[in-house]
Amino acid sequence: MVYTPKEEITKRIAKLRILMEEASLDGAFFHYKIDYYYLSGTMQDVLLFVPIDAEPILFVKKELSRARKESPIEQIIHYRYAKDILPYLPSIKRVGIQLDVIPYNDVVKFKKLLGDVELVDVSPLTKELRKRKSPFEITLMEKAAAISKKVYAQVPRLLREGMSEIELAGLMEAYAKPLGHEGLLRVRSLNWEAYTWHILSGRTGGLVSQADSPMGGLGLSPAFPVGASLKKIRKNEPILIDFGICYHGYQVDETRMFAIGSMPDLFVKAYEACKEIHYRVLDKALEGVTSKELFQYSLELAHKMGYADHYLGYKKHQVRFLAHGIGIEIAEFPFITASHTYPIEDGAVIAIEPKMVFPGKGACGIENTVLFEHGSYRILTNMDENIIII
Amino acid sequence: MVYTPKEEITKRIAKLRILMEEASLDGAFFHYKIDYYYLSGTMQDVLLFVPIDAEPILFVKKELSRARKESPIEQIIHYRYAKDILPYLPSIKRVGIQLDVIPYNDVVKFKKLLGDVELVDVSPLTKELRKRKSPFEITLMEKAAAISKKVYAQVPRLLREGMSEIELAGLMEAYAKPLGHEGLLRVRSLNWEAYTWHILSGRTGGLVSQADSPMGGLGLSPAFPVGASLKKIRKNEPILIDFGICYHGYQVDETRMFAIGSMPDLFVKAYEACKEIHYRVLDKALEGVTSKELFQYSLELAHKMGYADHYLGYKKHQVRFLAHGIGIEIAEFPFITASHTYPIEDGAVIAIEPKMVFPGKGACGIENTVLFEHGSYRILTNMDENIIII
Repeated sequence: MVYTPKEEITKRIAKLRILMEEASLDGAFFHYKIDYYYLSGTMQDVLLFVPIDAEPILFVKKELSRARKESPIEQIIHYRYAKDILPYLPSIKRVGIQLDVIPYNDVVKFKKLLGDVELVDVSPLTKELRKRKSPFEITLMEKAAAISKKVYAQVPRLLREGMSEIELAGLMEAYAKPLGHEGLLRVRSLNWEAYTWHILSGRTGGLVSQADSPMGGLGLSPAFPVGASLKKIRKNEPILIDFGICYHGYQVDETRMFAIGSMPDLFVKAYEACKEIHYRVLDKALEGVTSKELFQYSLELAHKMGYADHYLGYKKHQVRFLAHGIGIEIAEFPFITASHTYPIEDGAVIAIEPKMVFPGKGACGIENTVLFEHGSYRILTNMDENIIII
Repeated sequence: MVYTPKEEITKRIAKLRILMEEASLDGAFFHYKIDYYYLSGTMQDVLLFVPIDAEPILFVKKELSRARKESPIEQIIHYRYAKDILPYLPSIKRVGIQLDVIPYNDVVKFKKLLGDVELVDVSPLTKELRKRKSPFEITLMEKAAAISKKVYAQVPRLLREGMSEIELAGLMEAYAKPLGHEGLLRVRSLNWEAYTWHILSGRTGGLVSQADSPMGGLGLSPAFPVGASLKKIRKNEPILIDFGICYHGYQVDETRMFAIGSMPDLFVKAYEACKEIHYRVLDKALEGVTSKELFQYSLELAHKMGYADHYLGYKKHQVRFLAHGIGIEIAEFPFITASHTYPIEDGAVIAIEPKMVFPGKGACGIENTVLFEHGSYRILTNMDENIIII
């Protein structure tokens, strides 16, 4: 089990403090697990307080000894009721909290507890921090990618005609878990779930669903309307496997194409177009152009190649992103979208996923998790990119 | 695939309206997927509006045709931006919304959109509704329980000495998924996750973690500090398998005990005590006493049997609940806890889980999902309750 080193946490908090100072914050509370894991190294039941000019304090509700083992924060204090934290707080007037995820009722309670304090959304600050991955984080993502490669390598052994999408998904999961895959992909929302078992075959690849994705799949029921379904996998249809892996909370996202027998020509060609867009956009990103320009560039490429109605979804269901940053959340900064105006810089890790959808027939596409470093890029999910025929 | 019938949705909304009238609400918005699934039958990307005296309106952001297929609501309207819904709203002054889960920033946006409207937390109303399950819901939970029974029946075939907890968990999941198990357990919180793969063997059964549970297990990393781990399963140690199953969003929770070779006497006896508490509390519940009294009664039983320091957790980590209601959320009303004052009534489905924890050694316990009906109770998770020795 890997614990986050002390120097890693120290650096993250030092960087956060610079942003907090710019935002004139006296301190910030982190009550949301993704954010306090990033800043403290633990996901026990805690509340993290980072004052602008003193040591951070980790308030632990349940298991003190595990929090102490997992987190290098020095001040770790047990508390039972919210009011127990008050004696430890310095004088604060303007304080950060994650207003993008904290429920309304909890903010009301927090305000009552803290009295005359201005609460400010601190999430834009941590999102900004997490735009660049550290060498420690990259190591964990490389491990996740290595698991992903091993899992994809099992597909020719596991996949057979007539098995359902969900059966294959279950077998891939069962193989991945003892390698350290944690089974969930984490999304910064209660309404969205990203299922790691995203396997679509033939017509299910043409189905749109709740998710902001070119294709959602059929899923198992109206309560799980996304991802692998009970549809049987048949010969000569495109099988899109988009299987996210999570290791120590760090995720990689990867999509590869498979077929039993043969891949219909429509999808062979569309897949080649996806690969071309994927690499040309990555190369273009190195020129320092903005996210928005990269997205526009990819649209132009898709249009020129004749895929205007299929690229990133079918007609009116086309999505407005080509890549999402990835790390301890499945979608974090930076993104390649129609609206973001920053360039993709060194330290960014993005999952780039050009995909084509043909309703009634299926979908195809490629996805890689890619690190930008030393003015270049490196594909972390380095599994063979050819269509695999079984 | 089972869709929620029209009469089911009509009844739920009629009952909701009675509670809305008591709360003097002109209408209520449902933006949280669990609640709109319950009231509309779909989990597409929607916003449900229920006016007090007109037909409900389902606003759909993405896939209109799937929402129409899944939901029997008659008015289903596509929208793109939040402001697009305004022309469809009647005059409203006091309106419900789920303030217990909706993020603070979203409430601010909602207030801006709606103008001079009083927003009231509507979640206590839907929670109250969901306290009683309908025959349709019970059918889905029976199906989930049937899947659970089949999965537990596989354990003697799958479990072998030296495999890790997570390996067994993965194999059980792989078996469960093609039967319709949906792989996630849903919790009404962004900070809590309930992993379906909760397998603890020997000492990991003695570990407390983030979860509000007598024992959390080791998990796979500080980012997933709950549930099955890479610890190898050994002979003659207690193996606690607490494996939740989800079918069409409806969950059942079940715990059974296994051992390879033999079960240490300490756990054989403690497990018998758990079973006795389980059945005596269920019988007592039929007398109509309150949740609080049931909890107290179970404590007295545990104390008399000599398990004061082990019942529902070890000493200072003892939890204050014995049972949680269960349905489309893993913890919903009614509960058996130290503080709730209602009786357990017909229509309730609860997961009752007396468990004993021995730090350094392990844990044991039983858990069943139990329906109260016709003035009696029926165990839905009707797998053999004997300790299974392999």
